[in-house]
Amino acid sequence: MQVTAQDVANILGGEVVGDPATIITGPGKIEEAIAGDISFLSNPKYTNHVYTTDASAVLVSEDFEPEQEVTTTLIKVKDVYTSLGVLLQQFGQVEHGFSGVSDQAIVDPSARLGDNVSIAAGVVIAADVIIGNGAVIYPQVYIGKGTEIGVDTILYAGVKVMHGCFIGSNCIIWSNTVIGSDGFGFSSDEERKYNKIPQIGNVIIKNDVEIGANCAIDRATMGSTIIHEGVKLDNLIQVAHNVEIGGHTVIAGQAGIAGSSKVGKHVVVGGQVAISGHLTIADGAMIQGKSGVGGNIKEENSRWFGTPAIDYRNYLRSYAHFRNLPDMAQKIKSLEKEIAALKKSLGADEA
Amino acid sequence: MQVTAQDVANILGGEVVGDPATIITGPGKIEEAIAGDISFLSNPKYTNHVYTTDASAVLVSEDFEPEQEVTTTLIKVKDVYTSLGVLLQQFGQVEHGFSGVSDQAIVDPSARLGDNVSIAAGVVIAADVIIGNGAVIYPQVYIGKGTEIGVDTILYAGVKVMHGCFIGSNCIIWSNTVIGSDGFGFSSDEERKYNKIPQIGNVIIKNDVEIGANCAIDRATMGSTIIHEGVKLDNLIQVAHNVEIGGHTVIAGQAGIAGSSKVGKHVVVGGQVAISGHLTIADGAMIQGKSGVGGNIKEENSRWFGTPAIDYRNYLRSYAHFRNLPDMAQKIKSLEKEIAALKKSLGADEA
Amino acid sequence: MQVTAQDVANILGGEVVGDPATIITGPGKIEEAIAGDISFLSNPKYTNHVYTTDASAVLVSEDFEPEQEVTTTLIKVKDVYTSLGVLLQQFGQVEHGFSGVSDQAIVDPSARLGDNVSIAAGVVIAADVIIGNGAVIYPQVYIGKGTEIGVDTILYAGVKVMHGCFIGSNCIIWSNTVIGSDGFGFSSDEERKYNKIPQIGNVIIKNDVEIGANCAIDRATMGSTIIHEGVKLDNLIQVAHNVEIGGHTVIAGQAGIAGSSKVGKHVVVGGQVAISGHLTIADGAMIQGKSGVGGNIKEENSRWFGTPAIDYRNYLRSYAHFRNLPDMAQKIKSLEKEIAALKKSLGADEA
Repeated sequence: MQVTAQDVANILGGEVVGDPATIITGPGKIEEAIAGDISFLSNPKYTNHVYTTDASAVLVSEDFEPEQEVTTTLIKVKDVYTSLGVLLQQFGQVEHGFSGVSDQAIVDPSARLGDNVSIAAGVVIAADVIIGNGAVIYPQVYIGKGTEIGVDTILYAGVKVMHGCFIGSNCIIWSNTVIGSDGFGFSSDEERKYNKIPQIGNVIIKNDVEIGANCAIDRATMGSTIIHEGVKLDNLIQVAHNVEIGGHTVIAGQAGIAGSSKVGKHVVVGGQVAISGHLTIADGAMIQGKSGVGGNIKEENSRWFGTPAIDYRNYLRSYAHFRNLPDMAQKIKSLEKEIAALKKSLGADEA
Repeated sequence: MQVTAQDVANILGGEVVGDPATIITGPGKIEEAIAGDISFLSNPKYTNHVYTTDASAVLVSEDFEPEQEVTTTLIKVKDVYTSLGVLLQQFGQVEHGFSGVSDQAIVDPSARLGDNVSIAAGVVIAADVIIGNGAVIYPQVYIGKGTEIGVDTILYAGVKVMHGCFIGSNCIIWSNTVIGSDGFGFSSDEERKYNKIPQIGNVIIKNDVEIGANCAIDRATMGSTIIHEGVKLDNLIQVAHNVEIGGHTVIAGQAGIAGSSKVGKHVVVGGQVAISGHLTIADGAMIQGKSGVGGNIKEENSRWFGTPAIDYRNYLRSYAHFRNLPDMAQKIKSLEKEIAALKKSLGADEA
Repeated sequence: MQVTAQDVANILGGEVVGDPATIITGPGKIEEAIAGDISFLSNPKYTNHVYTTDASAVLVSEDFEPEQEVTTTLIKVKDVYTSLGVLLQQFGQVEHGFSGVSDQAIVDPSARLGDNVSIAAGVVIAADVIIGNGAVIYPQVYIGKGTEIGVDTILYAGVKVMHGCFIGSNCIIWSNTVIGSDGFGFSSDEERKYNKIPQIGNVIIKNDVEIGANCAIDRATMGSTIIHEGVKLDNLIQVAHNVEIGGHTVIAGQAGIAGSSKVGKHVVVGGQVAISGHLTIADGAMIQGKSGVGGNIKEENSRWFGTPAIDYRNYLRSYAHFRNLPDMAQKIKSLEKEIAALKKSLGADEA
């Protein structure tokens, strides 16, 4: 694929600063780019590279004003990161490498397959499964009895979706993620042994959800574990039974949400966060990576940090003093000495 | 399935308060239930729903006394959660959807299969494997050379049990969990490069153990990593080489136990807990989610929190002061000023 | 296999203290060993076992001087743990249990297979894949289009390597690990919905790398996620897009490294550590388990703890005071009272 800087500007609704005829052959990172590459500047930490990059063109924000001479061609756009997404879609079309239903897939005769589905070798599809039009099922996926997969959804290699679950349209589920494993429910008897509570609910995943690799999304005890439209989950995430995650929430890697908690819409959850069970998290809340949320979050768009999590800024303030605790202890000792001295001197006065 | 409230009370050894002829067609969550559903009230947070639920019947504790008018039929039982388990077993029989040995499973001729085993398509079973009577092996499971699987044990889709391991009877292992991967053992040489220590031990899992999805249970360097009877592990848990977990211990999601640690019986480990290597954890210890245990826990039934973990109540007390550190620092400053003023005034006195 | 203590000493370049003709039939842990076993003493916590073990021989450090009578035969070596590795390699040869290309593997005709490769049943290999000589591919592995696997590398059951990635020679990748899943990249639009940034880069893993079970190594947005020579990763680790991990770094279980961070050489990362995105970690840094690294680490061989991580010793000092905060708060209260009393008494003086 070969285009000009002007072509790119036209696609992105941007403006060329430099030679519009500059030839672009592909994308490249600003610090590693070679002639022919188009790069982007989104994170200000990388600004210096604009002046030294070998890229033939660089996407920059429309309000970017160079502070040194620039030799590359700039393409000014409203939102660099969004424009990068559009651009990479032009250059990065992935071919799945298979189409139709492989004769080495094992598909129960009762399953209903939509038009133009791609089902690869080594896939196992149980009875009464419904696969929507255009869905792509990579090798070694398992789909349990009665589960439905929506239109144009992609299940990558090794995904396991257990029985009775629903996955919407335009979803992407990455390799080896498990959907519909049993929730972690046991009752303890008089000998402190645990007996299994059967988990007879399911998992419902709405449209436009992306879930990373090696996640575990448990089925509900009763009812449904629900992941709403547009949610994006990173890798190695645990979503426990009866959790509900509101639309357009993003959750970073290795986070976990315990049973029955309700996470709002547009929430941002950092990596390795834990949210305890039976909690409600308000819309738009931001939870800093590594935090352990132990209570409800009631204020929308509030920001949290620590274990148990408290207000983000308060955590940072307290932590600054935490670092200073040896000094603080020393000050208290000094004060005690001074007061003792004062008391002695006063006592002397009194005597 | 359709039963009466009296039928349910008979099954559970409970008592009907209301119409014993109430028809019940299935279970439902108290806040979502519809006519015909039976719900339960176990967590007091949900008590208000008893007065408004559309469920036809609700399981409650035998000492539950309504504070408002109740329109649903109550079934009083000794232990609500245990009774729920019994009830869900009536309503929630899962069919595996396959039985016998699939001709699309690949089973080494030297493997010994018990009676009534179910081995699905896409399973690979290596030489000298022994599968107990009634075991159920879902698609895409791999069982390595010489491994034994006990009677009535279920391995869900994608489980990998490497060579030479033992899994007991009535165990449930969820999808994509790996059992018997090598322990993380390396010796460092003079150039600070790492050389692999072969891991020649195995994993032994006793009876009635349930392990969630996407866990990793490493084999021992020598000897065995051992998980005792009745242990319940949630999803995404790491159990390192030579760890031993005592009977009837429960471990929540994303927790990790480092090499050679011995966890006692009836221990409760919260989500995302880390236990360092070569430690001993006393029977009945409770470790709060997110904690990092860095030393032995010697006192039985003690409760821990923080990183490094300390007594649970002490952690909460210290954390309350942590939140207050900016104020504490301010108080110290004020004290310093007051003392300086006092000294000055005293000095003036003395002068 | 049966050897004498002297044979072992010869292999390891060690010295026998005791009967060189002692017969050794296999390795065993010092606290569980039986007659015929050879054990080792590396961790001083286990020293007492030397005097009571039933092992026929024990590897000890060349500077070990018994403080009680020893009945077992000692073999003194320079580095016990390294010697153990050599010894276990003698005793613990694992057979993969398959060789050649299984006729139940599904290999695209365009794939190029080296000499002496072993490809098991249920493996799926896409177009244009290259497999090096002697590589071993366990059941249910998937290798995506155009990916290269180096000489003598082992992929255990269920590993998924997506398209266009490179894995070097002598690597070991454990079961159900995913390599080349998409990085977690989304741009947010005006309605706070997320649009996918295509991830068109790949993953490059150099020689002699070992990666544990159920890890997720994401492909780069552009360019490559790179894991350099000799790196060892434990289980359940997340490596995000465009991360680079320097040679001979070791990372313990359940740690996660966020996007674009560069980890140096010979770094030691503890279990459940989180490293934020766009950071640089100096060579030889040691990060204590459970820490959350929120800033660059500039000093080589420095040691870190806490969230956000600070100097290891300073964290421990501050944490000691944290445990003591209730007492510290009490002291401040006492000081305030004493000063109030002093002021009152002075005021009385002045009056």
